[in-house]
Amino acid sequence: MHFSKAIKQAVFSLSFVGAATVGFADPLPSWNSGGTKSAIIDFVEAVTDPASEDYVTPADRIAVFDNDGTLWAEQPAYFQLFFAIDQVAKMAEADPSILTSDALKAAAAGDVEGIVASGKEGLLQVLGAAHSGMSVSEFKANVAAWLAEARHPTTDRPYDEMVYQPMLELLRYLRDEGFATYIVSGGGIDFIRVLSEDAYGIAVNQVVGSSLVSEYVVGEGAPMLMKQPDLFFNDDKGGKPVAINHHIGKRPIFAGGNSDGDFEMLEWTSAGDGPSFGLYVHHTDAEREWAYDREGHIGVLKRGLDEGADRGWFFADMAQDWAVIYPNTAE
Amino acid sequence: MHFSKAIKQAVFSLSFVGAATVGFADPLPSWNSGGTKSAIIDFVEAVTDPASEDYVTPADRIAVFDNDGTLWAEQPAYFQLFFAIDQVAKMAEADPSILTSDALKAAAAGDVEGIVASGKEGLLQVLGAAHSGMSVSEFKANVAAWLAEARHPTTDRPYDEMVYQPMLELLRYLRDEGFATYIVSGGGIDFIRVLSEDAYGIAVNQVVGSSLVSEYVVGEGAPMLMKQPDLFFNDDKGGKPVAINHHIGKRPIFAGGNSDGDFEMLEWTSAGDGPSFGLYVHHTDAEREWAYDREGHIGVLKRGLDEGADRGWFFADMAQDWAVIYPNTAE
Repeated sequence: MHFSKAIKQAVFSLSFVGAATVGFADPLPSWNSGGTKSAIIDFVEAVTDPASEDYVTPADRIAVFDNDGTLWAEQPAYFQLFFAIDQVAKMAEADPSILTSDALKAAAAGDVEGIVASGKEGLLQVLGAAHSGMSVSEFKANVAAWLAEARHPTTDRPYDEMVYQPMLELLRYLRDEGFATYIVSGGGIDFIRVLSEDAYGIAVNQVVGSSLVSEYVVGEGAPMLMKQPDLFFNDDKGGKPVAINHHIGKRPIFAGGNSDGDFEMLEWTSAGDGPSFGLYVHHTDAEREWAYDREGHIGVLKRGLDEGADRGWFFADMAQDWAVIYPNTAE
Repeated sequence: MHFSKAIKQAVFSLSFVGAATVGFADPLPSWNSGGTKSAIIDFVEAVTDPASEDYVTPADRIAVFDNDGTLWAEQPAYFQLFFAIDQVAKMAEADPSILTSDALKAAAAGDVEGIVASGKEGLLQVLGAAHSGMSVSEFKANVAAWLAEARHPTTDRPYDEMVYQPMLELLRYLRDEGFATYIVSGGGIDFIRVLSEDAYGIAVNQVVGSSLVSEYVVGEGAPMLMKQPDLFFNDDKGGKPVAINHHIGKRPIFAGGNSDGDFEMLEWTSAGDGPSFGLYVHHTDAEREWAYDREGHIGVLKRGLDEGADRGWFFADMAQDWAVIYPNTAE
């Protein structure tokens, strides 16, 4: 977080006011008191106060958030992979001849380890089968049907109820304070758009993500946008600032992520001229969620941990900073 | 335009009310009375009236517009080409060694015919020199500096004062009625964003266009987005519906264009389930602007003229339907 000295002083005095009012108007009730919660509130107060020298005009209050592991859970595998596996199984029921490889057979059998064993090529086969060869509308209908029925393998919750309550509060708080909130995810743009409005209150035009090539096709009937198997854009690492420029056209002043795939997005956000806030969600809670960072097959956070504090970024330590993880859970 | 029968009747009765009120609250004062103006107003009244069966909720009131030849002029060549030519000349002043081809030499000499004579490859060299090899911020600063100084070769007006007054009124009218207005242009997204807010009241995140690859680069100093010479996306013809899905994520209900490059955008818009409006700006005014359609090197409108009426689209005949062309002109 980059603050002028004047604002640091103002923030210091504001913190007393904050303490006095927190009882009846806490914008982040599921966040435990502490440095990160205070820093978020101090930042928002500073950039929204017209008298502050860190004031930012509403049109420039852009906040961007990664999705997997930042706004909802991502273990034991990206939820979009579970969708793909379930989708291949469903397609194979209708037409078993589609199972032309070991990876697709593993997917149809719900054998995640089998898919992983088939390597990157196998993984792309499974994703490709579920994500291409149909129109964007058909794809979205498939995702919606899956979301309505599917349950997470260990929590047994619907996937869209594995969003993080503290992050929902943060999104709402930022919007209440005049921010535009965007998702900037390595996940699929068409996939996330099916749930973004209901799950996060984020309109579809404020979702940025990875995507396959799609093609405008006019056949016998109505024109369609057909999803092709080739990758159009990989919205990860340095791709995130590129996609932010492409879709939003402005540099954000607030960025939230959870892995090294988000590093460049936080770096780009922090490199702006004015005030900025970088937030890393740190998965430290093996009991209520999952604990992982430096090692693993997903959501690796290594460089972020090593450099984040020096860069002025804040960490949401899930075990310590979050009173609840998921919505509608009494904890 | 696709209207239910009930709404046609309502529209018929509304037209009397419209006639009575037009004297003091005409939303489109620079449009002459006539079929196209009435059709636009009837459509907007229908989709914004909660009692109408053609009512469209504000979140789905998406309007998309081509830029060159639709919102501003495009003759005798795309304005972005004039920018590129001027930019190459400016760069050559600082470093003449950049003029490594006949096309670049022609550009530096302001010789448009020479560039055209060098073919597509030469044209791409000129565009490439002006549009790549610098950061997005530098590029935008170049465009802003050019817009402030450059004058159109025949009208001597600043380019951003060659926007069409009737279309400015249409954009404002649609926004006043709860529409989100987007530009969906074959022109460059970074280029148009420099002027979209001031010229059209369209925020940068609502600009969709063609683009070159850009790359996130971290060097000694601050990170940068560097513009590369390779094309990332060509936002023309079937690319327009693809880009609309990519950026907006919803099908528009209003689309305006002026050439066959916009045909698929109007087709896609009209193929939605609900009411829709397709508008073609028809360049018929050789006196106040330019007259061209079926033939030429730019803005060719052939299929649109042949099929538009049957598809229920409307034409803004510039000579007949527009009382003025450019803002601040007494005519």
